[in-house]
Amino acid sequence: MADRVANPGLRSKICSAEHAASFIRHGMTVGMSGFTGSGYPKAVPTALARMIEAEHAAGRPMRVKVWTGASTGPELDGALAKADGIELRLPYNSDPVARERINRGEMDYLDMHLSQVAPMAWEGFLGPLDVAVVEVTAIRADGSLVPSSSVGNNKTWLDRAEAVILEVNSWQNAALEGMHDIYYGTALPPHRVPIPLVRADDRIGEPTLRCDPAKIVAIVETDVPDRNLPFSPPDETASQIAGHLLEFLSHEVRVGRMPASLLPLQSGVGNIANAVMTGLIDGPFDELVAYTEVIQDGMLDLIDAGKMRMASATAFSLSPEAALRVNNDMARYRDKMILRPQEISNHPEIVRRLGCIAMNGLIEADIYGNVNSTCVMGSRIQNGIGGSGDFARNAFVSIFMTPSTAKSGAISAIVPQAAHVDHIMQDVAVLVTEQGLADCRGLSPRKRAELIIANCAHPAYREMLRDYYDRALKGSYGLHAPSLLREALSWHQRFIDTGTMMPG
Amino acid sequence: MADRVANPGLRSKICSAEHAASFIRHGMTVGMSGFTGSGYPKAVPTALARMIEAEHAAGRPMRVKVWTGASTGPELDGALAKADGIELRLPYNSDPVARERINRGEMDYLDMHLSQVAPMAWEGFLGPLDVAVVEVTAIRADGSLVPSSSVGNNKTWLDRAEAVILEVNSWQNAALEGMHDIYYGTALPPHRVPIPLVRADDRIGEPTLRCDPAKIVAIVETDVPDRNLPFSPPDETASQIAGHLLEFLSHEVRVGRMPASLLPLQSGVGNIANAVMTGLIDGPFDELVAYTEVIQDGMLDLIDAGKMRMASATAFSLSPEAALRVNNDMARYRDKMILRPQEISNHPEIVRRLGCIAMNGLIEADIYGNVNSTCVMGSRIQNGIGGSGDFARNAFVSIFMTPSTAKSGAISAIVPQAAHVDHIMQDVAVLVTEQGLADCRGLSPRKRAELIIANCAHPAYREMLRDYYDRALKGSYGLHAPSLLREALSWHQRFIDTGTMMPG
Repeated sequence: MADRVANPGLRSKICSAEHAASFIRHGMTVGMSGFTGSGYPKAVPTALARMIEAEHAAGRPMRVKVWTGASTGPELDGALAKADGIELRLPYNSDPVARERINRGEMDYLDMHLSQVAPMAWEGFLGPLDVAVVEVTAIRADGSLVPSSSVGNNKTWLDRAEAVILEVNSWQNAALEGMHDIYYGTALPPHRVPIPLVRADDRIGEPTLRCDPAKIVAIVETDVPDRNLPFSPPDETASQIAGHLLEFLSHEVRVGRMPASLLPLQSGVGNIANAVMTGLIDGPFDELVAYTEVIQDGMLDLIDAGKMRMASATAFSLSPEAALRVNNDMARYRDKMILRPQEISNHPEIVRRLGCIAMNGLIEADIYGNVNSTCVMGSRIQNGIGGSGDFARNAFVSIFMTPSTAKSGAISAIVPQAAHVDHIMQDVAVLVTEQGLADCRGLSPRKRAELIIANCAHPAYREMLRDYYDRALKGSYGLHAPSLLREALSWHQRFIDTGTMMPG
Repeated sequence: MADRVANPGLRSKICSAEHAASFIRHGMTVGMSGFTGSGYPKAVPTALARMIEAEHAAGRPMRVKVWTGASTGPELDGALAKADGIELRLPYNSDPVARERINRGEMDYLDMHLSQVAPMAWEGFLGPLDVAVVEVTAIRADGSLVPSSSVGNNKTWLDRAEAVILEVNSWQNAALEGMHDIYYGTALPPHRVPIPLVRADDRIGEPTLRCDPAKIVAIVETDVPDRNLPFSPPDETASQIAGHLLEFLSHEVRVGRMPASLLPLQSGVGNIANAVMTGLIDGPFDELVAYTEVIQDGMLDLIDAGKMRMASATAFSLSPEAALRVNNDMARYRDKMILRPQEISNHPEIVRRLGCIAMNGLIEADIYGNVNSTCVMGSRIQNGIGGSGDFARNAFVSIFMTPSTAKSGAISAIVPQAAHVDHIMQDVAVLVTEQGLADCRGLSPRKRAELIIANCAHPAYREMLRDYYDRALKGSYGLHAPSLLREALSWHQRFIDTGTMMPG
């Protein structure tokens, strides 16, 4: 493994995870690598969690603030949350143990637009960054770092941290070197300049991360794959959603509103997103490109099928099989993928310039198409807003997709009023469920409501929604976006009280 | 007046407003100039309203779709709405007659992000633009058009419309020529490139608007000032809000998070915005610049006081006195102001690059700092989101300001849950009322709630909010952003039922 640390001066820093973790102390802020469960440090957070448990057992307080790219893995968020070692977590979490602590009020969680994390860390109001813990694939002879399976905020953590701990993970193929594009042209205002990226496949930076070697206090060698959740093939609901969406895209090409190769695709994570990618394999579109956050299995399949020529992202999020596939054939994939800092992969400037087709999931949408992406029943955080806000507001077309019900029909994904709002109706152009698609572009709130109820709601809830809306048209304070305040959130309350939104 | 139409070939198109209006027919879409009550056509819309009334009297249907920059004046929105001549209105309205029709469900209203109107008009889904009616200051010998007191979407309307009607308003000083900067580099994806603006005072375009003379069907000469609402000096509440805000800005400079000349200021329209500008006159900041939508009286005073060196906007919104002041001294002001298309004045790419300090008003904010800018009691449109979404999400610091109560205390501007959301908590960094300022940057929802209740709520409502929040901490479904769904909108319902949010 030692040849992954090619810089002679840094070889002396190789140590155990326990020793590395000992640089982290109570109250510190730690910037860790990791984005959608890839490229996160595995050994040091686990050792840190053990250290925290030992401190707690000894009656001493120990908690840290944890900043990352986005979600990590059980060895990081899971272990640290289990140890009650996290005081504040930002900018995104999907770990179930951490989620539970947040929703019990035991842990602070700052749910942020992913493009804004790096600039806000530079702005300074988040406080200093004490330690960076970053997984890399290799340390080159000149001391530069070959990133791992995610880039996330690593550039910023390495620049901002007082001390740096590196995990050099030799599980990742050394041929990852050259896939990354680290842009060093960002700045704080008034020194910002245009970001010179005009095509999804432009390279505007360097293949490696810079790091002042004097700041590196510890290097831990690992050989572990990422979390790599198994991939489940699309179910019928996901395939129906994908079908409606592909029909819409075909229509847009037919009427001349989109090029035949579409526009750069942004795709959220998950089953439905994968179903859309799978659907595109047999679709009429060629020479596709992606400008997105994560490269999932479906996108890999599109590349293999020769339908997608380039995917730009900030991370992989692959199944174990797909991760092996990529790792075993890295030299070939390297020319068809670019991993960038999330500040760039999600940058509003770029998203609007490229005209991305944004496709994101949701928890619920209301009849006007206001979308709740984060808070179940309005108060219970699920994961976070992630990059959906970066993309939805700036996309060429902002599409949100969801099954029309959840929990075996106990929850309607279309409700009278969203109990929490992450995406306002202006940022939601198209809404798709397995029932159908509502193209809300150019429609007033009342026309949106009619279309969303008719096309997207599940039949079991459709008449209830129509009844609510019809009565709101008579009894609302104003008729721009009619509502009945006494009932607007009653479906959620009924679910909390009875376990279903369906009246008894 | 005839020397304002210097192109010989176009002189023959000079006609009456009635003749010009006759080119507009039932069902057409009309793109009119106008932004915050300035630079809107005055004669043709009035003639059109009379024509519509005559058609209706004769039992014939006549309604049009009206697109503008933003708000116009009573001669346009007021007259057309009174005549029931508007089928659909976009992207912004503040006319009381039109507002009433929208809220009675008699008129469709599309409330849009102002930066997105031009690109969406190009995308095509809004349908074709039949006629443009644009006020200009002069037609030059080469046929190019000197814009008036607002630019708005005029470039796009002139490019997209089948037929063009011009109002040449000689009330505007001919010396306006040279103040405008019309950027012709926009495109639809995949052809977009970086917008080469890196300082608020950069000029990147041309001083005049292009227009194919073959499309010009009518030219109407006018000599009328803009609506120019009277300016009311800041009241005590506004001055207190401004005071808190200036203290915050001073603090940010002191701790090194902002340059001593601040960053480009964006300021919403109205009394409080003006109070902030007035406060800056005696403040410690020099060499200020504005990158904003509208130039109000307060900004003019800052320029006159030598504190502001440049204001970039898309329109004026001045009192009659200030309009005269500018008009009488145009040659001097011309070098200190730039009017741009609203696509550029509000462009997310530029707003983020420059790092604007965004200062916007609101209707209500909830305890987490989700902001409702548009819908009173959640359903009744007031004006519209305007450019607040363009600026708030991309600003260096996004500030929202409001008196803590409205309607003599019957309405609390801080509520348990916003009845409608335009700005999600991630886009609301700082909240200010006359009570105080809540700097919510870096805070989790629960910490935001504590701060907003303590610092911003009116004492008459503070304990009620604290009581709600304390009980939500016990009874909420999840504790990420605690809520009690049965009560969350009850304050609004109480206001509707009893005329006050205060319990009886």
